[in-house]
Amino acid sequence: MAVQPTRIGLAGLAVMGQNLALNIASKGFPISVYNRTTSKVDETVERAKKEGNLPVYGFHDPESFVNSIQKPRVIIMLVKAGAPVDQTIKTLSAYLEKGDCIVDGGNEWYENTERREKAVAENGFLYLGMGVSGGEEGARNGPSMMPGGSFEAYKNIEDILLKVAAQVRDSGPCVTYIGKGGSGNFVKMVHNGIEYGDMQLIAEAYDVLKSVGKLTNEELHGVFTEWNKGELESFLVEITADIFGIKDDKGDGHLVDKVLDKTGMKGTGKWTVQQAAELSVPSPTIESSLDARFLSGLKDERVQAAKVFKEGGELARIWKGGCIIRAIFLDRIKQAYDRNAELANLLVDPDLAYFDSYRRERLPANLVQAQRDYFGAHTYERTDVEGSFHTEWFKIARQSKSNM
Amino acid sequence: MAVQPTRIGLAGLAVMGQNLALNIASKGFPISVYNRTTSKVDETVERAKKEGNLPVYGFHDPESFVNSIQKPRVIIMLVKAGAPVDQTIKTLSAYLEKGDCIVDGGNEWYENTERREKAVAENGFLYLGMGVSGGEEGARNGPSMMPGGSFEAYKNIEDILLKVAAQVRDSGPCVTYIGKGGSGNFVKMVHNGIEYGDMQLIAEAYDVLKSVGKLTNEELHGVFTEWNKGELESFLVEITADIFGIKDDKGDGHLVDKVLDKTGMKGTGKWTVQQAAELSVPSPTIESSLDARFLSGLKDERVQAAKVFKEGGELARIWKGGCIIRAIFLDRIKQAYDRNAELANLLVDPDLAYFDSYRRERLPANLVQAQRDYFGAHTYERTDVEGSFHTEWFKIARQSKSNM
Repeated sequence: MAVQPTRIGLAGLAVMGQNLALNIASKGFPISVYNRTTSKVDETVERAKKEGNLPVYGFHDPESFVNSIQKPRVIIMLVKAGAPVDQTIKTLSAYLEKGDCIVDGGNEWYENTERREKAVAENGFLYLGMGVSGGEEGARNGPSMMPGGSFEAYKNIEDILLKVAAQVRDSGPCVTYIGKGGSGNFVKMVHNGIEYGDMQLIAEAYDVLKSVGKLTNEELHGVFTEWNKGELESFLVEITADIFGIKDDKGDGHLVDKVLDKTGMKGTGKWTVQQAAELSVPSPTIESSLDARFLSGLKDERVQAAKVFKEGGELARIWKGGCIIRAIFLDRIKQAYDRNAELANLLVDPDLAYFDSYRRERLPANLVQAQRDYFGAHTYERTDVEGSFHTEWFKIARQSKSNM
Repeated sequence: MAVQPTRIGLAGLAVMGQNLALNIASKGFPISVYNRTTSKVDETVERAKKEGNLPVYGFHDPESFVNSIQKPRVIIMLVKAGAPVDQTIKTLSAYLEKGDCIVDGGNEWYENTERREKAVAENGFLYLGMGVSGGEEGARNGPSMMPGGSFEAYKNIEDILLKVAAQVRDSGPCVTYIGKGGSGNFVKMVHNGIEYGDMQLIAEAYDVLKSVGKLTNEELHGVFTEWNKGELESFLVEITADIFGIKDDKGDGHLVDKVLDKTGMKGTGKWTVQQAAELSVPSPTIESSLDARFLSGLKDERVQAAKVFKEGGELARIWKGGCIIRAIFLDRIKQAYDRNAELANLLVDPDLAYFDSYRRERLPANLVQAQRDYFGAHTYERTDVEGSFHTEWFKIARQSKSNM
């Protein structure tokens, strides 16, 4: 229990929340923490002790949590986007007072933030939607933060954000007030869209080097390490180099080759493409990256696709005349469906199977999954064992670097 | 005034509505027609007389219009998607009776159709959302139709649709019951997405033949005419051949060269891309076509883009550290904005101007605009004269063909 009020509160103690709380405390700001599952509270307090007696104060109930924070209170939420955010706001609102600030640090759809800012304003609360990038490691040691919404709320928390953010020489802390409403979430959404593009670009380079150039993982490790020293120096090129250097802990060879080539995603890339279309902005690279993720996931969806595409033959027939896209080519499509009404995709019909690449058993999506698990602990599946796996890529890479 | 009840009604007498009404009447079904602006009613009745005393009966008020139709009534609406459809339903509902059917023949967002089907069901009315493809010419002589919603309503109108639809040898009338809810609109949306892809494909072929191959319009006319005799035989290749054969009526040369290279659109292509993303379906060709339309329109939007992109420098700065996409390349982006904070697009900074194609003054979008005006009377702008123009491409092409 804190003897005097803490400077700030944080609700939602999954990995990102824990790490951001420890980061804030390590910059000298006493912080109250709360989580619905109370074991996470104790875990965080325990970590704070171990990592140098950081001023982290844990609470098992929302009321004492809120009361422990100095006024006007600032509480950062790091819970799953959507309904859990609404639920957390509801829980906290019962104890908040006029002028208190709620900050959503998740990847939220910007319109939800704008709806909530208006809703909590009726109680006199201020609201920020703040995109946080950098994954686990960034949250602990310095993330990039994109706060948007109430400028007054931003001012109440600015001193903390400036110290907690990543610090870049000549360029200062990686945080700035983005603007009103959901602009912070919007900018984070676009940021993630760019991330999709960067990752797909690296995956394609990997694919060419491996499939055409026949480079081994050791050679790939060397190439990406070299690239990271020049024009391409970047976080994603760096972790890619790391990934190629990590051995499988469950068998022979490198871990990257055991990662299932089926990419996961959480929606921000999709939102970026949809919003770009809405705003008439061409976004070819992000679109292609999203498509590549969709394609990598198609194996599982064929059964469902077969149902949807049953109608394929009849549509090809009614589009043969009258309509704008009428063409004799539609005949062949109709015939393909006549031959096999259950055809999941036209490309697998013998007469139309011109996209051999569609049949590729193995896509470079395993690298994307390894990257996502590296920076975001999103977990991955393996080609050889059932289940979800998480690897401490960063720690292993750091160890092997320090051993050199 | 009809002596006995007509078989069906049609509300909304712009080009598409007029032509579909005349088509229905020419198949032997007496039809009542109505339009809010009553001059359109008289115009339609006049056309019906001229085109062979077709059984088209005009009404200037919605009550007598509805009352003139045999029960259970079927009324097709051909009004603009969105609010005008709601307004028309409201107007007609005052006079409809239980069991009557409303059919929306426009390019409506499928969720609107599902909402309306539920709403009118409260009054006991049936509802169909029916995509109609084929443009003006198809509406008059045989469109492809995609009805979805109430199967009972479909059965009430099936005899008419089977005769009115385009008839294709060996394959039958171009209409089929698509399915429940908004499925007819959904399928029409995807159809239009495919149309975007077809048109962009043709535009790119045109671009290569013209820019690299230096083909004249006469030669292009020959190539596309030839293509239309083989594997590529299709409506869009045919009208493209036609377009290259049409002379400018306002000056020297061919009309296609005077059409402004700025593509219009009405939303179905955008919806297809957004829905494909929503459903995890890769749609690279449609995405690229949509992007090409966006790019062709960018000239006008630079002024606004400059405002939006003002923040570009600051975002490049806060993404330099902490976040997933951090990279030294962001430094150069920041510098570009430091040099010119008003920079509308990074590509125009001297240090980053690697996309010379972005600077292309003339894109092949003029062909797309000519095609859209050909089949949909969407009008086009000219490079030399202000205003919106519409050309009777079909009539001119038919005349020149019959003169050969």
